[in-house]
Amino acid sequence: MTDSAHQYTYESAVVRSVLDSARAEGRTALTAPEGKRVTDAYGIATPAEALATTCDDAVALADRMGFPVVLKIVSPDILHKTEAGGVLVGVDSTAAVRAGYSTIVGNARKYDPEARILGVQVQQMLPAGAQEVIVGATTDPTFGKIVAFGLGGVLVEVLKDVTFRLAPLDDTEAASMLDSIAAAAVLRGVRGAPAVDRAALTGMLRRVSDLVNDFPEIAEVDLNPVFATPEGATAADIRIILAEPAVRRPQFTREAILESMTRLMKPAAVAVIGASSEDGKIGNSVMKNLINGGFAGDIHPVNPKADDILGRKAYGSVLDVPGDVDVAVFAIPAKFVAAALEEVGRKGIPNAVLIPSGFAETGEEALQDEIVAIAQRYGVRVLGPNIYGYYSTWHDLCATFCTPYDVKGGVALTSQSGGIGMAILGFARSTNTGVSAIVGLGNKSDIDEDDLLTYFGEDPNTQCIAMHLEDLKDGRAFVAAARATVPKKPVVVLKAGRTSAGAKAAGSHTGALAGDDKVYDDILRQAGVIRAPGLRDMLEYARALPVLPPPQGDNVVIITGAGGSGVLLSDACVDHGLKLMEIPPDLDAAFKAFIPPFGAAGNPIDITGGEPPSTYEATIRLGLEDPRIHALILGYWHTIVTPPMVFAELTARVVAEARAKGIHKPVVASLAGDTEVEAACAYLFERGVVAYPYTTEQPVAALGAKYQWARAAGLLPPG
Amino acid sequence: MTDSAHQYTYESAVVRSVLDSARAEGRTALTAPEGKRVTDAYGIATPAEALATTCDDAVALADRMGFPVVLKIVSPDILHKTEAGGVLVGVDSTAAVRAGYSTIVGNARKYDPEARILGVQVQQMLPAGAQEVIVGATTDPTFGKIVAFGLGGVLVEVLKDVTFRLAPLDDTEAASMLDSIAAAAVLRGVRGAPAVDRAALTGMLRRVSDLVNDFPEIAEVDLNPVFATPEGATAADIRIILAEPAVRRPQFTREAILESMTRLMKPAAVAVIGASSEDGKIGNSVMKNLINGGFAGDIHPVNPKADDILGRKAYGSVLDVPGDVDVAVFAIPAKFVAAALEEVGRKGIPNAVLIPSGFAETGEEALQDEIVAIAQRYGVRVLGPNIYGYYSTWHDLCATFCTPYDVKGGVALTSQSGGIGMAILGFARSTNTGVSAIVGLGNKSDIDEDDLLTYFGEDPNTQCIAMHLEDLKDGRAFVAAARATVPKKPVVVLKAGRTSAGAKAAGSHTGALAGDDKVYDDILRQAGVIRAPGLRDMLEYARALPVLPPPQGDNVVIITGAGGSGVLLSDACVDHGLKLMEIPPDLDAAFKAFIPPFGAAGNPIDITGGEPPSTYEATIRLGLEDPRIHALILGYWHTIVTPPMVFAELTARVVAEARAKGIHKPVVASLAGDTEVEAACAYLFERGVVAYPYTTEQPVAALGAKYQWARAAGLLPPG
Repeated sequence: MTDSAHQYTYESAVVRSVLDSARAEGRTALTAPEGKRVTDAYGIATPAEALATTCDDAVALADRMGFPVVLKIVSPDILHKTEAGGVLVGVDSTAAVRAGYSTIVGNARKYDPEARILGVQVQQMLPAGAQEVIVGATTDPTFGKIVAFGLGGVLVEVLKDVTFRLAPLDDTEAASMLDSIAAAAVLRGVRGAPAVDRAALTGMLRRVSDLVNDFPEIAEVDLNPVFATPEGATAADIRIILAEPAVRRPQFTREAILESMTRLMKPAAVAVIGASSEDGKIGNSVMKNLINGGFAGDIHPVNPKADDILGRKAYGSVLDVPGDVDVAVFAIPAKFVAAALEEVGRKGIPNAVLIPSGFAETGEEALQDEIVAIAQRYGVRVLGPNIYGYYSTWHDLCATFCTPYDVKGGVALTSQSGGIGMAILGFARSTNTGVSAIVGLGNKSDIDEDDLLTYFGEDPNTQCIAMHLEDLKDGRAFVAAARATVPKKPVVVLKAGRTSAGAKAAGSHTGALAGDDKVYDDILRQAGVIRAPGLRDMLEYARALPVLPPPQGDNVVIITGAGGSGVLLSDACVDHGLKLMEIPPDLDAAFKAFIPPFGAAGNPIDITGGEPPSTYEATIRLGLEDPRIHALILGYWHTIVTPPMVFAELTARVVAEARAKGIHKPVVASLAGDTEVEAACAYLFERGVVAYPYTTEQPVAALGAKYQWARAAGLLPPG
Repeated sequence: MTDSAHQYTYESAVVRSVLDSARAEGRTALTAPEGKRVTDAYGIATPAEALATTCDDAVALADRMGFPVVLKIVSPDILHKTEAGGVLVGVDSTAAVRAGYSTIVGNARKYDPEARILGVQVQQMLPAGAQEVIVGATTDPTFGKIVAFGLGGVLVEVLKDVTFRLAPLDDTEAASMLDSIAAAAVLRGVRGAPAVDRAALTGMLRRVSDLVNDFPEIAEVDLNPVFATPEGATAADIRIILAEPAVRRPQFTREAILESMTRLMKPAAVAVIGASSEDGKIGNSVMKNLINGGFAGDIHPVNPKADDILGRKAYGSVLDVPGDVDVAVFAIPAKFVAAALEEVGRKGIPNAVLIPSGFAETGEEALQDEIVAIAQRYGVRVLGPNIYGYYSTWHDLCATFCTPYDVKGGVALTSQSGGIGMAILGFARSTNTGVSAIVGLGNKSDIDEDDLLTYFGEDPNTQCIAMHLEDLKDGRAFVAAARATVPKKPVVVLKAGRTSAGAKAAGSHTGALAGDDKVYDDILRQAGVIRAPGLRDMLEYARALPVLPPPQGDNVVIITGAGGSGVLLSDACVDHGLKLMEIPPDLDAAFKAFIPPFGAAGNPIDITGGEPPSTYEATIRLGLEDPRIHALILGYWHTIVTPPMVFAELTARVVAEARAKGIHKPVVASLAGDTEVEAACAYLFERGVVAYPYTTEQPVAALGAKYQWARAAGLLPPG
């Protein structure tokens, strides 16, 4: 993990010696003086302070620093000093220092009679009125070293207003943390209070980030509170915890991933191990789906008990199959997998797709470890086990025991769970969603989201990637793959299990604040990923995003026949971070020319309910052709004058005409009406207009997701 | 508004004299000493303080109170003292008081050279470490007097962590405010800080509530900050603003509303003014829908140019129609409405349904005022104008120009907007939703949501009411109607325009904090209303809530074939405030007996994906029959072993068997699978199981809404 170049050399040696001596003593927590040596070495500002080992010492030190001072117990055995009654603030006279010294030593002895007490820290007290913040770093099981920032005091504990980033941070990322907390305005100064020194805070975040990045054995750093003033930022308390650094699992190079994934997704030859002629068997379903799906490559059934399966020559072993094979699909019981995988390895097949269950998910971890070891020995990449298989539609490949799927299109979908995979399939079929791939990941013994993301990022048939996941085996690899992909195409993630961990998190130190989900949320956003709040949202985004062209600017305009829809569409714009354009006077006049005098221009543009098709057509055309407008939201109201299919036809036509002129703007529509609006929506969707019946939220959510991606991809300035 | 009995008599006289003298001087803001007389009269604690008109005065007063003190400018012309540099805190010596006096008087003069300066308030300084809170009251345009509570300091301003209630408050409501802010835990004491005196805060909220309730001309009260300690609560700053009290529009009695609404919804005879034989005319559509809808009462066309319309005798005027008429439906242009309404009034028809547009919504306020005046003169209740009409399905009444709707059922739907009304109709037809009524409210010149709520609350055919609204003409009448209805049946509200006002709100005083939407949100919740976040949610709740029996307790159990669905269903439970039951050991063992050894009991109960129908059946039956379980969430995974319709049939059968035994528990289901799950969901929905395909969120959201209602109705303890 010490992969970042850094400028600390003498300073690093200081930290190294502090850490080494603490570990030599078998301690995982640094004392306050040790903490100060570490923070001093990394240029993290702390108040003037010194250790007093006697009461007289303390008085002398306080006299030198000036009153008031803070007194704190120093003991390697007492981590939570406040709880131990080991802290006194605002000690403002010689007599008070003298009394305070005895008090906190007494308290500490009562709190833990076994504690070794090294003395009392006397510390310069920081200016009243400074803003308390928390700066910290911890080691997340998924993402490794992460940096935390929040407002200090009791509110961070109660409101959990904290934000996280992957370490190491650059300056832009560090600065973005100050804006990412709910109470960000406090740092800019409110009600006449001065703004804090942002450069000082940003610098402190970077220094903490560098520290944990340089020393992987530093598991946690807590600077809490940090006093932020207009002139600087000073850490008043330092807590540093050590642990054995985690070992990251082996990494494949980007080239190696692309090579094996390309053979997985575009194979020339597939072997089906456990192929069967018998209806109802998985090995039969897989064969049928490969054949009926229209796969043009070679399909080699492997089954020692058959000569021919579904008209294809069968082989006793994969070793007998002639020529190169790109993928071996396993449709045999778990207990036979290891032996067959050995043969796959010996044959030099690069990909094993393990459909069978009966591995880690049923408690058979040892069996799974065994197959992983075999695969690693031969360099075979493993998809699964415990999956429904996968689809690669542009290659007419249905290597699954479900039903074929043949609507080719722009979205690649993956799911960790088989049930969710079936929901993906059903939804896609029901909505006629154009798909480039559907992949089951199951136990993720090897191939996981970052491998697939790396491939789909480069796949010209894929315009959007949507992934259901419950965990990430390697959060850093995923973030790296997402960062490489997002500038090219949107990545949507449904992270399941998002609430439980957060709900259990408690306490005030950085580790406890880092409830799983908040860390996922911040770091996925940092990686530019669109996080779907639920399954249906993921599916709808997957359907809609490839259909919409990227927006070229922020100006969104609503054109509606129903005033009521206009209000709800405006609500949805606020919910999804879209900016309703302030219509300039000339454009307002241009819209007004088309609508009745009692209609409202402005934004929403309310063309009123009784209007003929020509009014919809003229206003939509103007919305597309005026270069100051960047996206359209249409609100349709079913009337006898303009029936649903008439609206759909005219809208699709006007959009197509604009595209023929090189005008590509995202257009979404909400259709309010009787059931005929359903067919109208399907007609529009097929023609590049994202349209939904009976909802004002869904079309705006889809547009909002497209904008979120455009910002993450750098096509638009940050929102 | 002075309708509440109260115990203040002498005290009221004091307040009256303060208010009268301020108004006599033409002032709308009370001075600090006036504010103190008012708060003293109502028993609201404030710090020791007195007015100094000279510097020497100030020094003498401070000496008497003890240091430190606060100095504040007193001027009727300076409301925002801090911004004027007119406040000094922590003034801790005679010399500092002397210097401070000149400073703030100087600052105030600079801030506003015209300001009349009456002196400087010298105030006892409150204990450091007290929790600052804000207590206030304001006058909301929709709801009238409302009380506000939040944490003080800059965070209330930045994080808007404030809660609102209608005045007058009772003790329970006042106490609930302390728990309704995000930072509620702060008041209970965190990190060893003591809890504040809740009774003192609750008392202060009640006193402020009584004050504004007793004196409607008090438009706004701000106690900010209030210092809350373990021993009391003291208002450090008082700001009171006066205004002319608003006049409430005339109220109908509950009996009068029920009588006219019953004749509207269950008429024996309907006249159609502007009935027509000509296709495409609104008066023709209305006639056809009445006839084809199967209305069994009399239908009287009124049209001076026809003798017969669609086989019914036509009349030249409604005055010529024989016998009583309950409803006159208007299908004539706006300009003819007034004259026809006069005749409706003279005929003694109690209800006029005004379909035509061309009134206030097109700027013709005067025309609308004219018809309202005519209606009031004759005692005619008016629905509309500018509506699609209304449906009363159990009475086979389709008094609308849309298409008939005949699926009788338990939900009454209303919409302010015609477009949303069409979405309601389309959605209901597409999903086969059982409906008791659909009503357009349009311009709400007279009949509004509280009239309809009052009626539907009593209507035995209505089990749930869902309302789309953009505003409330009389928020208090709506709350009263909701409170009377919610104990009997759920009320769902989609409040449109919910974000704009909130986004515009700014500043720190109570009036500015009361952004429209937060007030609606808190007060609708206080009234027990379920607020739908969007149109589709309202429609889905409307469809699902009448189908689900009320839960009898908090224990929710998830039974799932797909582990992946189980995780997402659990997420959704947290989102929707549902409590996953902790399964006791005997019940755990009972479930385990039915599922494979690698399946997981606990909650979710993961029966695993490959199980036959018997496993679903046994576990669902156990879930229904064990009395400790109160609601079931099912996660189905499409397999060859248990196809979708097999699951649907067995689930519906087991639920029906339980109901036959008197076991009524809400059961919802998420079906993950290929498109056959859609038919399975429809089958289940018709049989009382709320089931959705391709979503884990929607079924749980419906169950969550049912629980929210059950708590509001007092069937379950508060969540």
